[in-house]
Amino acid sequence: MSENAPPYQIQTQSQDYESLTVSLLSHQQRSINSTSQVAIVGANVCPIESLDYEIAENDFFKQDWRTRGKIQKFQYIFMKWLLCFLIGGFVSLVGFFNNLAVENIAGVKFVVTSNMMLDGRYGMAFTVFSVSNLVLTLFAAIITAFISPAAAGSGIPEVKAYLNGVDAPDIFSPRTLVVKIVGSISAVSSSLVVGKAGPMVHIGSGIASLFGQGGSRKYGLTWKWLRFFKNDRDRRDLVTCGSAAGIAAAFSAPVGGVLFALEEMASWWRSALLWRSFFTTAVVAIILRALIDVCFSGKCGLFGKGGLIMFDAYSANISYHLADVPPVLVLGVIGGILGSLYNFLLIRVLRVYNFIYEKGIIYQIFIACTISIFTSVLLFGLPWLASCQPCPLDAAEACPTIGRSGNYKRFQCPHGHYNDLASLIFNTNDDAIRNLLSKDTDSEFQLSSMLIFFVTCFILSILSYGIVAPAGLFVPVIVTGASYGRFIGMLLGSHTNLSHSLYAVLGAASFLGGSMRMTVSLCVIILELTNNLLLLPLIMIVLLISKTVADAFNCSIYDLIMKVKGFPYLETHAEPYMRQLTVADVVSGPLQLFHGIEKVGNIVHILKTTRHHGFPVIDTSPDSESSVLYGSILRSHLIALLKKKAFLSTPMRLGVSDAFKHFSADDFAKRGLGNVDKIEDIELTDEEMEMFLDLHPFTNASPYTVVETMSLAKALVLFREVGLRHLLVIPKISNRAPVVGILTRHDFMPEHIFGLHPLLVRSRWKRLRLQLPRLLKIL
Amino acid sequence: MSENAPPYQIQTQSQDYESLTVSLLSHQQRSINSTSQVAIVGANVCPIESLDYEIAENDFFKQDWRTRGKIQKFQYIFMKWLLCFLIGGFVSLVGFFNNLAVENIAGVKFVVTSNMMLDGRYGMAFTVFSVSNLVLTLFAAIITAFISPAAAGSGIPEVKAYLNGVDAPDIFSPRTLVVKIVGSISAVSSSLVVGKAGPMVHIGSGIASLFGQGGSRKYGLTWKWLRFFKNDRDRRDLVTCGSAAGIAAAFSAPVGGVLFALEEMASWWRSALLWRSFFTTAVVAIILRALIDVCFSGKCGLFGKGGLIMFDAYSANISYHLADVPPVLVLGVIGGILGSLYNFLLIRVLRVYNFIYEKGIIYQIFIACTISIFTSVLLFGLPWLASCQPCPLDAAEACPTIGRSGNYKRFQCPHGHYNDLASLIFNTNDDAIRNLLSKDTDSEFQLSSMLIFFVTCFILSILSYGIVAPAGLFVPVIVTGASYGRFIGMLLGSHTNLSHSLYAVLGAASFLGGSMRMTVSLCVIILELTNNLLLLPLIMIVLLISKTVADAFNCSIYDLIMKVKGFPYLETHAEPYMRQLTVADVVSGPLQLFHGIEKVGNIVHILKTTRHHGFPVIDTSPDSESSVLYGSILRSHLIALLKKKAFLSTPMRLGVSDAFKHFSADDFAKRGLGNVDKIEDIELTDEEMEMFLDLHPFTNASPYTVVETMSLAKALVLFREVGLRHLLVIPKISNRAPVVGILTRHDFMPEHIFGLHPLLVRSRWKRLRLQLPRLLKIL
Repeated sequence: MSENAPPYQIQTQSQDYESLTVSLLSHQQRSINSTSQVAIVGANVCPIESLDYEIAENDFFKQDWRTRGKIQKFQYIFMKWLLCFLIGGFVSLVGFFNNLAVENIAGVKFVVTSNMMLDGRYGMAFTVFSVSNLVLTLFAAIITAFISPAAAGSGIPEVKAYLNGVDAPDIFSPRTLVVKIVGSISAVSSSLVVGKAGPMVHIGSGIASLFGQGGSRKYGLTWKWLRFFKNDRDRRDLVTCGSAAGIAAAFSAPVGGVLFALEEMASWWRSALLWRSFFTTAVVAIILRALIDVCFSGKCGLFGKGGLIMFDAYSANISYHLADVPPVLVLGVIGGILGSLYNFLLIRVLRVYNFIYEKGIIYQIFIACTISIFTSVLLFGLPWLASCQPCPLDAAEACPTIGRSGNYKRFQCPHGHYNDLASLIFNTNDDAIRNLLSKDTDSEFQLSSMLIFFVTCFILSILSYGIVAPAGLFVPVIVTGASYGRFIGMLLGSHTNLSHSLYAVLGAASFLGGSMRMTVSLCVIILELTNNLLLLPLIMIVLLISKTVADAFNCSIYDLIMKVKGFPYLETHAEPYMRQLTVADVVSGPLQLFHGIEKVGNIVHILKTTRHHGFPVIDTSPDSESSVLYGSILRSHLIALLKKKAFLSTPMRLGVSDAFKHFSADDFAKRGLGNVDKIEDIELTDEEMEMFLDLHPFTNASPYTVVETMSLAKALVLFREVGLRHLLVIPKISNRAPVVGILTRHDFMPEHIFGLHPLLVRSRWKRLRLQLPRLLKIL
Repeated sequence: MSENAPPYQIQTQSQDYESLTVSLLSHQQRSINSTSQVAIVGANVCPIESLDYEIAENDFFKQDWRTRGKIQKFQYIFMKWLLCFLIGGFVSLVGFFNNLAVENIAGVKFVVTSNMMLDGRYGMAFTVFSVSNLVLTLFAAIITAFISPAAAGSGIPEVKAYLNGVDAPDIFSPRTLVVKIVGSISAVSSSLVVGKAGPMVHIGSGIASLFGQGGSRKYGLTWKWLRFFKNDRDRRDLVTCGSAAGIAAAFSAPVGGVLFALEEMASWWRSALLWRSFFTTAVVAIILRALIDVCFSGKCGLFGKGGLIMFDAYSANISYHLADVPPVLVLGVIGGILGSLYNFLLIRVLRVYNFIYEKGIIYQIFIACTISIFTSVLLFGLPWLASCQPCPLDAAEACPTIGRSGNYKRFQCPHGHYNDLASLIFNTNDDAIRNLLSKDTDSEFQLSSMLIFFVTCFILSILSYGIVAPAGLFVPVIVTGASYGRFIGMLLGSHTNLSHSLYAVLGAASFLGGSMRMTVSLCVIILELTNNLLLLPLIMIVLLISKTVADAFNCSIYDLIMKVKGFPYLETHAEPYMRQLTVADVVSGPLQLFHGIEKVGNIVHILKTTRHHGFPVIDTSPDSESSVLYGSILRSHLIALLKKKAFLSTPMRLGVSDAFKHFSADDFAKRGLGNVDKIEDIELTDEEMEMFLDLHPFTNASPYTVVETMSLAKALVLFREVGLRHLLVIPKISNRAPVVGILTRHDFMPEHIFGLHPLLVRSRWKRLRLQLPRLLKIL
């Protein structure tokens, strides 16, 4: 054994040897898994549970599938596509009206303020500006905090965790959806440095989930054809399509949306899903195009050529050569460092906010107001620092800008002059990005203004993300990155052939890559935003470099947020220490078993005393005293059985046809959120408690199993790849009970494993300590 | 039970019930799996086997991993990226020189022929044209047939099967690589309607595989740092990157290449792989760009603005409205029907060819020659049917064309006139596509010429694919589709606002979608080829529709070819009948077991008498008479053990450290192709045969297992998702042997299952017969 090997490996190796001889059960620490079953969802702490992506192959369902005729199969396939179409349609409508509202609300605000400033009424202008911002922020914060705390933040971490199999209550409820839409419009309009792309992903997923649930029973919106979708598996597919549609609608980037869902959101992916999400985003793209066609004729108020983030940084004959590559490399490296720094600071601020938020809603709203006022002061105050620039004679557009959007804001400047910092900072984020990215503007901005703008965006976006309101990260990161890139381009000056606007695009790419760590999807999104395929090789280089550099420091922003929030996210990749452990080393007890034919009283007792969601079902064969594993049954199915009260007076075995007499597949369908039955709600008489239930027809007779000596790493691969909720652990030597335990998602979490095996922690820390100097050296 | 349910379900259901009471072993048909272990690779039939993508977690390897220090880990990671860089570099070089060679060889041919025709020497021109074509085709066919039959065809089905876990000998050998490169150049230059994109994918994968093997030991090209890559898992990742690089180099479509590898090629995909393949294609894009920069200065002979397929069908202000959508829909529907018809006919021709090819190499070459002569006659003869057109006065380029590539070929026409059909047909395929896609050419072509060209391409490409030479399908499909689209556009005439060249793009998309059935990757490839993002929504619609329509008739061309070739490709999706079967219903015997400490003679005997590649290892515990499963061991590891002859004279248990004394990880590394040791090559004395081997340190102690009552569908999900080669089946009641059997890829093949359960076939046919009228109705 080499000296480099951490000490725990020796320990586990000797354990390995021991395990070959000693009975395994003896040295198992049968402790209860104490890792957290709660997480921060949006702004508040909520209980979470896992989703059932595994098909429960029990006799009842098999029979149900067999009885599905051609019409039902056609219904199912037709509905799949119809739902995708509807999701695409609704998401594009929401995305469009979201933009329409933001452009008009923020537009009116800026037009009124600018007009006051033209009259020299600066104090009044500031008052109007800051009060309207405060009101808008307050509104967003109040509806979020009081009506649906789950709508706070971008929602991407929640949706990502959902697609990984973690169900948080309320994230897809109609209430959250409405708050997210209204709150996002109001927060973005209030000049906070927050984006709308993240909320759009959440909105898209929420719409998809509602469709999948068959509408909302609470609001009387249900449809019989949707009954086949009442399971976690189909709903997961719809939510994936919904998240793709969200990005597609936010950036009008249909291919980018599909790739975003694939690369960042989805944990399981099939080729059929690629096709359906592509269809969904195609619908989004076409409807958006039609709506924009309508708006071009000027019927949408201030939503003119602004609106939807599309930057069209187009210039037909961009050319670059090998000599242009070194500055681009530098841009990528610094972008990566800045991106990881951004992640680091954002997480720190988020932790502080979460600490404060625990004290009460009033504190949550107080912070939102503080940030709003701080933002207003900065946005209004900073442009005064910039010196006025004379209007260029050959300006392509009016100078100073007339109306709302344009490159030359006058602000406090005399006639024939413009304030370059105000053009960036006293504007919506979309317009700022458009100004940064527009071509032939190399002489428009001053170096100092660009630096001020970059620092302001960097700080404000870090402070703003954590407030109790819908708030995305994409647009803030793009605007910060674009200003950083343009700043570098201006610094380089005549040493480079590339235009400043091109540097802005590359800066945005590097900052996105450094913070979000995606590759293909970001590349395509940027291409679709800028509408220029010739940039492709440069964008690829920048993204690869910034991601590589940033990965040396920390992980992607969404993963960090998920960790802060406490979601038990299952990674694909098994950690090396998992190879040294067997499943028997982590499985926790006590195990609760059911018999194939079980007394009602026992079922009720176990359901009431444990919080497990899956139970092994064993059969005791009459000819031998040993019992065999029959399968596993879900808590929700047991509750459905208890609720129907179709009990047997004597312990006897039922056929499937008997089961069909009493139950329909609908009884076992996964309900919408908030409608889940609880064991406490079922009232049974003493007589009923003495009766029996035949669990066989409802037991999943094909559960996935691992032998207790299986290495934890390989069990994780199985658990993750197949998408399980429960994994049965069976004994190696079978003269004991036929099941040793059940592994769930929580048993694979590092906290749990390190809790059981403290030696691993020590060696892990040791390794971290060894890595630290290396990291510092890179810094 | 409904009347719609097929009869076999009743049968299996009753079997299910029976299985609960009767011992399972008794009614198992322990027949030997008789499905084919051979497949058509390239042009010839070869034996195939599976790949080991599962990590064999035995004590020896665990120990080996532990002893890997930081330097080794760094080496590994560094090499991963370096290899991707090298793959990208080599593939782009090959792709570039491939194009260079084709453009120059075909170019000289066309220039010489055209000059002769200008002098009126038509007979001589035809002779030169047809003889040079014949020589080129003959050369390609001879080197393919005699040196490396595996290089025939596009190679995409073979690579796709490899990435699914099917190893065909010789597909990645250096010999095949060379033949593929030279043969592809020669076949494409010979005016056959064959493409170079498919061969580029094969070449890219071949280069990647050679790098992964650590070069070729046969040719003395090895490198010690590559030792960690000598396993199927790492090689699979490299091959995936290589296939992405192939498409990227063929179309200079880096993002399209990644998506192609993801959507069409790879069966397993991780986010890390996305990143690395993106890096690989970024390298390809950058090197290609640099090389093209060099060629723009005119140093590359006839490879000027032609070369690399990039069509730049650019026009800044394409505009289209809702009214343009209906004709596009029609285009998509017809494209889908044509695409599936194309697949159908191609497969028929391929079957006929394969039937003829079995008779001998001379027949293979005879067919190649026939096709070449037929092609020459058509290409030279058909343009005479077209009437000469007067040159337009405002032509953007010289008319008639001077030199090689251009829109206005003179052919037999008088001065000041051009032959529009010759511009398409008497040209390389790349130039024909460029002419079809170039803008402002609406009046250039006649309707009749376009129809002739479409029919010619359609027929020739179907006939040419099957010849014994490297031949891709992408370019033929694009050229056929573009001519079809343009034909439709011309038919519609003034009823549509879209230009004919736009119809050509959409026609190519519809035909690609109808034949290849990809979505996102084709969309991105077409966008990168045409360099116009504004086309996106239209291309998306066309692709979705043509794929949907075509899917009603048959499956994608590559899947069909794989079926014809007989590759045991594992689908992700389990068929419904699999839910009705348990693994015990399909597992085939007889099972061969080893004991933890086994006699050498037994091992040799079993290895010689069976062709299994994996064996369960059991331990008989001293305290009880029952035996327990210890794990599974691979044939290749057993052979490595036997080869070292480190036998024990008495049956005793070894520690890992003892094992390390005799063996190094290199002994168990997967060798390059053709270097695999065989059991027949190991000679042992009688004395050695009586000695013992301790298999424990080399046995994978964490094999995946399923209980015999597991449904076949769920076992398939496990097998496919985790990427297994062997899946151990363990008994439900454990008073028997600890293993019932081993499932391999072949046990999941429909032929095997239907062979065991003939009732399923009948019901399946019945269902098909029921569907047939429906399909005919759609037609």
